[in-house]
Parts: sequence; structure tokens; C-alpha cells
Amino acid sequence: MRALISVYYKEGVEELAKVLQELGYEIVSSSSTAKYLTERGLKVKEIEQITNFPEIFGGRVKTLHPFIHGGILMRDWVEEDKRQAKELGIEPIDVVVVNLYPFEEKLREGLEERELMEFVDIGGPALIRASAKNFYRVLVVCDPADYRWVAQKLREKSLTLEDRKYLAVKAFSLTAYYDALISNALANLFGISEMFSQMAIPLKLVKGLRYGENPHQKGWLFSNPLESLGIANSEVLQGKDMSFNNYLDADSALKLVFQFEKPACVIVKHNNPCGTALGESPSEAFLKAKEADPESAFGGIVAFNCKVDEECAKLLTEMFLEVVVAPEYEPKALEILSTKKNLRVIRSLGFSYYWDIKKVSGGYLLQEEDTIDWEKWEVVSKRAPTEREVKDLEFAFKVCKFAKSNAVVLAKNGQTLGIGTGNTSRVDSLRCAIAKAKRFGFDLRGAVMASEAFLPFRDSVDICAQEGITAIVQPGGSIRDKEVISACDEHGIALIFTGTRHFRH
Amino acid sequence: MRALISVYYKEGVEELAKVLQELGYEIVSSSSTAKYLTERGLKVKEIEQITNFPEIFGGRVKTLHPFIHGGILMRDWVEEDKRQAKELGIEPIDVVVVNLYPFEEKLREGLEERELMEFVDIGGPALIRASAKNFYRVLVVCDPADYRWVAQKLREKSLTLEDRKYLAVKAFSLTAYYDALISNALANLFGISEMFSQMAIPLKLVKGLRYGENPHQKGWLFSNPLESLGIANSEVLQGKDMSFNNYLDADSALKLVFQFEKPACVIVKHNNPCGTALGESPSEAFLKAKEADPESAFGGIVAFNCKVDEECAKLLTEMFLEVVVAPEYEPKALEILSTKKNLRVIRSLGFSYYWDIKKVSGGYLLQEEDTIDWEKWEVVSKRAPTEREVKDLEFAFKVCKFAKSNAVVLAKNGQTLGIGTGNTSRVDSLRCAIAKAKRFGFDLRGAVMASEAFLPFRDSVDICAQEGITAIVQPGGSIRDKEVISACDEHGIALIFTGTRHFRH
Repeated sequence: MRALISVYYKEGVEELAKVLQELGYEIVSSSSTAKYLTERGLKVKEIEQITNFPEIFGGRVKTLHPFIHGGILMRDWVEEDKRQAKELGIEPIDVVVVNLYPFEEKLREGLEERELMEFVDIGGPALIRASAKNFYRVLVVCDPADYRWVAQKLREKSLTLEDRKYLAVKAFSLTAYYDALISNALANLFGISEMFSQMAIPLKLVKGLRYGENPHQKGWLFSNPLESLGIANSEVLQGKDMSFNNYLDADSALKLVFQFEKPACVIVKHNNPCGTALGESPSEAFLKAKEADPESAFGGIVAFNCKVDEECAKLLTEMFLEVVVAPEYEPKALEILSTKKNLRVIRSLGFSYYWDIKKVSGGYLLQEEDTIDWEKWEVVSKRAPTEREVKDLEFAFKVCKFAKSNAVVLAKNGQTLGIGTGNTSRVDSLRCAIAKAKRFGFDLRGAVMASEAFLPFRDSVDICAQEGITAIVQPGGSIRDKEVISACDEHGIALIFTGTRHFRH
Repeated sequence: MRALISVYYKEGVEELAKVLQELGYEIVSSSSTAKYLTERGLKVKEIEQITNFPEIFGGRVKTLHPFIHGGILMRDWVEEDKRQAKELGIEPIDVVVVNLYPFEEKLREGLEERELMEFVDIGGPALIRASAKNFYRVLVVCDPADYRWVAQKLREKSLTLEDRKYLAVKAFSLTAYYDALISNALANLFGISEMFSQMAIPLKLVKGLRYGENPHQKGWLFSNPLESLGIANSEVLQGKDMSFNNYLDADSALKLVFQFEKPACVIVKHNNPCGTALGESPSEAFLKAKEADPESAFGGIVAFNCKVDEECAKLLTEMFLEVVVAPEYEPKALEILSTKKNLRVIRSLGFSYYWDIKKVSGGYLLQEEDTIDWEKWEVVSKRAPTEREVKDLEFAFKVCKFAKSNAVVLAKNGQTLGIGTGNTSRVDSLRCAIAKAKRFGFDLRGAVMASEAFLPFRDSVDICAQEGITAIVQPGGSIRDKEVISACDEHGIALIFTGTRHFRH
């Protein structure tokens, strides 16, 4: 019986090696692992003694040899294999313990290209894959987290074919991740944005969640090894476990709030902003955002783009909220927030853009994220918006971009007054937004309206005029743009076309 | 100069091989490729002549040898590598042309486990990965689609380091896909549902789309090699190219319509159902679904769960629609639909469930899809719903599950009368649904209401009563359930708790 151990991260491997040796396995290792194990009292045969071939090219070729791979891949249920092995002197290898060069770590360290390429492991994945393929006979261990239970089961002679299958799947999962990361990282490094006919997305498990979108669905949070910011990489400072929906909502809130100059506050419910506001302080921004729709704000996810201070923390504890997200907190503020044991408090320094992916039945839709931050704004009405109106139009349009389509946002003085989202017709979203504004006692005279896609008819303009709304921003591009423009001119409404649509479904 | 060619799919490789030979490369091949090329007049050296080692174990070990991998991995910019290569007689390999055992094809053919495992390629990925790592010196070609341009560039001596980098990224993309597919397929086969700490999702490009959710975003459709049904695997029979949003909407429509007994029709806009109906025929179902919200139906995506006949096709051509999806079409129906050149007509036999994935900044949320089709329905009001009410409640609740949260659906006689979606508060969705129903002239007396998550307050019940709605279905589970139940009892409304929430964000 023979066990091959070749690991980059050596910690703890000696425990497993000792058990193997006790059970009568001959340990075979490559140079540095052999040294590590020998120093810890194990008897180790070097790979070179098996292959009768030196380790070459700075370690690039060590185990890529038929005496190693034959030892792994030999099928003990095939007579011809056994005959060939005997004839050629290939001894079977029954256990393979391998981990890989730390490409990911070195990528994060920002290594120069040629140095980084040295950390693309070739021999390791070949060993792992060969062993995993031959799980009927071979045991493969590629994660130090498995050393302990594998050692115990080996000692108890209770390791089963099921266990070997499980470890084989895990092994292919690792090599898939490794190459998915390499291909994506190199594509970024080399400026290649083409989608290949066959590709893979690497996922790194952060944690299992209590459940998914609903209690009967299992859910997990994964990080993308190619992004360093974002909600998946944020720090949970206190509170109950973040739920699937908490992450989804906190992500929307984070992305929107970082669109503004400081200080700003966004409150999200059901993945839509229900209130958004600017202020002189986080407290002012929060109070205005909450006032925008106090009904929906209850149990909301609140995000700030600035440091949460003591005053703001006090306000936050005065109502029921699910999550607070901010880049920074005053120590005093954290102390106050900690009185609400269940409140989830998250530190997130911002977000990054990557490929957006949506599941459809049978496959996936991939797209560039909607990263545009420059709009070709053009005044198309007779009356140009005032300076105050322009500020509010910009503010409202940003909120609108992060609301679910069809989205309409009414705003005044850096505060949303009514947000209509997720309707199947645009005018319905406007009606919802107006109804909300009225329910909460807002005077819409002098307010502005933003729509994330074009107004298809003049009906929305007429409704705005009725309410005293004085300025509108929308992409334009409808065949009835003229009708919409002249409706605005009739009512003296200032109209801006942005030229860019921002559907978000 | 040496080129290693080892391919499972041999077609066309002789063209590239000839160019290589003309340019003075010595061709090295494994047995079957060597035979193929020799038969086509090429001079080929067999791998065994390089390694002085036989091909063993039914081809499991052929190229895993230091004379091959050393030849690939040797760095010509490192003196010590060159010295070692010379000393050991390792000749550099400069070009590697490989493709892999067809694991995917054999998986689809339903091969028995042990046979299937033989199609997990070990030598091929090792060759591809080693060559891709050493792209500074080595050219790797792993896709027959690249034979032609590579041959031409080689002939013109215009192949650059940039080209080698591009092919290296493509190579790692392929090996990532291959292992992501293997790990996911084996996990399914072995019944392993655990998420590993490192994993990857395989994506197979179907096509680039004109753009993503918006014109300034690039978009692509990928299929999941582990699913055979679904919109990503459907057949586009005619019409303009399907857009990103078309696919998204058609997917929602398809999933919802297949929840019903035949015939049923769903019309989707902005990823939400705007009308859904059952009928005796597809025509009746379509007319009722359209009538439910004729405003939103304009430019909609229409899905059927039954064969589209001539009569229905005529009705479909009478209005502007973006997409029609159905499992079958009468030949006459297709003829009629073909008069609308732009109308996209899709054949889709149904859908499958897989992992749902949502992008958040910095990572991904993964979850089981909401596949529950059994609900623990319980009458909690004094009055039990009538048979007719039960039918409508079941109908409305299914629609509600596929609408975006917060969702409220009003229905009567197998027809939605008003759908409120995507609002940040539940009562707002109810208000939207009622406003819609009234706008289109529906009498809500005797209608039913469904909510995909619990009613938090009695306000929604009171509003329903005002409109003459007689039965409600919702998950239940609020701390104010009692208040909600007694409100129903006050109004004589029948109330059912399903016990299961169905958020969809």
C-alpha cells in the first residue's frame, strides 16, 4: 500500500501521514513535503526514488511520470492493467493527498505576470484529477479540512466507497474552481473580454444561510475571488445571521447609496428603495429617507455612504430595522447599536462591478453590469430646468436606475417623495408613486419626476402636470417623443432626455 | 521544432498538421491520432518513441511522462532549464493540439457510471494546462474552430504572444468548464448536494445577444450542460433575434404557464405576469389573459402550455406581441404566424429546475429553486371556500408565486382580474391590483385574492371586503394572524393558509 503526499500547505498533514504509516502505507512525497514529514519523524520515500527521474525545471516537472500516474490510474478490476503494472514494475498508489500552489493568494498580492504564472499548478491538478477519476480504488484528499475525519475513518477501517466518491467530487470541484479562477484572472490581466464557448464561474463558499428566498429553499452565500469589495466581502459586526433576502436587499442599498456624494441614506425593502435622501449629516439623510415612506421603512435595510455617528445610531435604534450598512461607524455609535442585539450591523467599504448573471430555465443570461455613470443629458423642452430642479433630477434618476422596472421616482430637495416600482406599465408606476406621496402628506408642487425608461405616451406628463410636478427626466427614444415633449411644453414642464435606458428587472 | 497532436475529434486536424509539417515541425501523436494523420500522408512520430514507455491501462496513461511534460514546460528564458533539458535529452515541444474525451456527450447518452468515468480525460487536460501555463513559448490549440486561423497565422509567421495568451486563456476556460461539468454531474449522480468551499458553474455559450438588459450593456445566453429543457434550450422558429429581456420574460412565462392543466395562457411584461387565464382552448385562454390587462399586454410575451392552433394563431397576429412560446404549433398556425416577420416564435417543451443564482456585489447568492408544488392548505376562517372559490384560489396562488414580491393577484373564473407586483408594501400591491381591475371594468364581487407572503395587518382584508372579494389565500404566519382571521370572519370571507411563503425578488 502506498500513499502519495505532495502539499503546498503542510500544516497538519503529518497527522494524516502518521495514521497512514501506522496502517502500513509507504509514504511517497515530493522534495519539500518529504523534508517536512521526515523532520516530523516519518519515513518517506522521495518521488525521484519511484520515478528514477530527477525533479526538473525548478519543480515544474516532478510527478508527471507513468510510475506515479500509472500507480494512481491502474484499475485493479482489469486483469490486463494488473499484468501491465507487474511487467513494468508499477506499484499501485492507493491514497493521494495534494493541495495546490496558491494562485489565488498570489493574484491578490498583485504578483507580476511572469511570477504569477509560476503559481499555476500543473502537477497538482493532474494528481488530483487522476486520483478522483479512479475513486473505485484510490482515495484523494485535497482539503486540509478533511485530514481529521479521513484519518479517523482510515484508522477505524470504516472509510467507504461513498466517502471516496464524495472526496472525488470535491476534488473535481476544486480543480474546476482553480481553473475557473485562472482563466478569469488571466482574461482580466490580458484584457480579453470575449466569452468562450465553454467556460466556468468560480465560486468560493462564504457560508450556508439559514435558508434561501423562502424557508423551504436552501441558500448559500459565495464570494467571487475576482472581486474584493461588495456585500459578499463585507464584515458583519453584530446581530442575527444575515439572511438570503438581507444580502439581496443590502446589496441594492449599498450600490445605490454609493452613487451619491456624502452623506446619503437609502432604505430598501424587497430589493427596491422605498426611501432615499441626501442630508447635511447621516441623521438628516436617514430621517428624510424614512419620512419618504415610513410604512415601508419598517423592517427595512438602511445603507449609508458615510460614517454613522452617535446621533444617527440613536435614531436607528428607535425603530425596527433589519440591517444597517455603512463604510464606517463611530465607536460610540457601535455601542449604541449593540443595545439592539438582533440588529445586523455591516461594515462595507463599497462595491465593485463584475459580470451580472441571471438564471433562466436551462441556462443563464450573462451581461455587463449597468455601470454607466455618464449620461448625455439634453434639455428638450422649451423651458430649461432651474438649478434646483437639475439637482433633484439627477438625484431622482440615480434612485430610478436602482429601482425595479418599471420605475418612477418623485423627488424634491434631495428626498424621494414617492417611488413606484415593478409595475407592468409605466403609468401604473407613476400612479403608485403619486398615491404614496399623497398618503404620506407630501406636496408634489415643484417636485421632479424620473423614469428609468422612456415615457411611451403623454399620459404620464399630463398626470405629472395635474400634481404640480415641474420637471421630468427620462431616456427618450419613443416614437412618440414629440408628443411627450409638446405635452411638457404645454404644461411648462422642463424635460431632459438622458439618452440611456436603465431597465432593472 | 516539435508539435504534439492528440485529439479525440480528429476532423480537420490534418490541415493544421500539414501546415506545421511544412513549417518544419516534427509531429508527435498518440496512437489513434498518429494513425489518422499517417493515413492522410503525414509523417508522425508516436508518443512512445519519445517516452520509450508503452501506452498502458487501455490508454489511461500515454502522455503523462517527463519527456512530454518537460518538453512542454521547459522555460527557454531560464538557463538552468535549458541545461537540464539538454542533459536529460528532453526536446522542447512548441505546439500542442489537444481536445478532450467527450464526457458531456457520454453523460447525455446516459452511460453507466463505470463506463462514464472512462470518459473523464486525465492526460488531455494535463497537456492543455501545461501548454497554457507556458504560453510564453508554447502554442496551445484546444478548439477545432481555431485550426484555420492558427494555421494561417503560422504560415504567415504572424502569430504573436498576444495570440498565445488568448489561446492559453481559452484553454484554461475549457479545462474549468470540463471539471465544473464533471463535478456537478458526479454530484448529481452520487446524490451529493453539499456545496463545497471551492466550486465552479459550467457555462456553455449559446450565443451573444444584441445587448444586455439595456443597449449599453453587452449580453450573452449560455446553456447549462446539466439541464436539457428550459428557455435556454428552446428552438427559435422564426422572427427577430431574441433579446436579453425577451429571454428573461419568456422564461417567467414558460415556468408559470406549465403550472396549469391545459390549456392556459400567460402574458408577461417586465418579468411579471400581467394577465393569466385558463380556457377551453388556447384561443379562449389567450383572450381572457389579454382582457385581464390589455394595456400591459401590448408588446407582451405570450406563453401557452398546449398546442397553438390556427384560430389562436390568427388572434395572436391581430396585436403587437414580442414573443410567443408554446410546446407545439399546428403547421397551419406556424404559417399564419409567419406573416408577422418580426414576431419571435419559440418552441419550448417545458422547463427544469436547477440551482438559482443571483449576483450581488462581491459574490453570488445561490439557492434551491422554489420547486414546491404541494402546499399544506388549511381553511382558517369560519366559512369554508366554495368549490369555485377553491379553484380560483389555487389558480391565483400559482400566478402569485411567479409574480415579483410583494405580489397580490385578484382572480375569478380562471382569469386574473388585477395583479399588483413589485411594491415595497403589501397593501400597495393590493391597491394596484384593485385599481387595475377597476380600470379595465372588472366587477370584483365574488373574486378571490392571493398573496405570496402573509398579510401583516387586517387592512388588506378590509379593502378586499369593500370590493366584494369573498375568499383569500395566503401563507399565514404573521404575529397578527388572529386579527387577520377575525377580520375575514367579520366580512364572511373564506381564508386559507398555505403554510408556505413564495417570495420572488
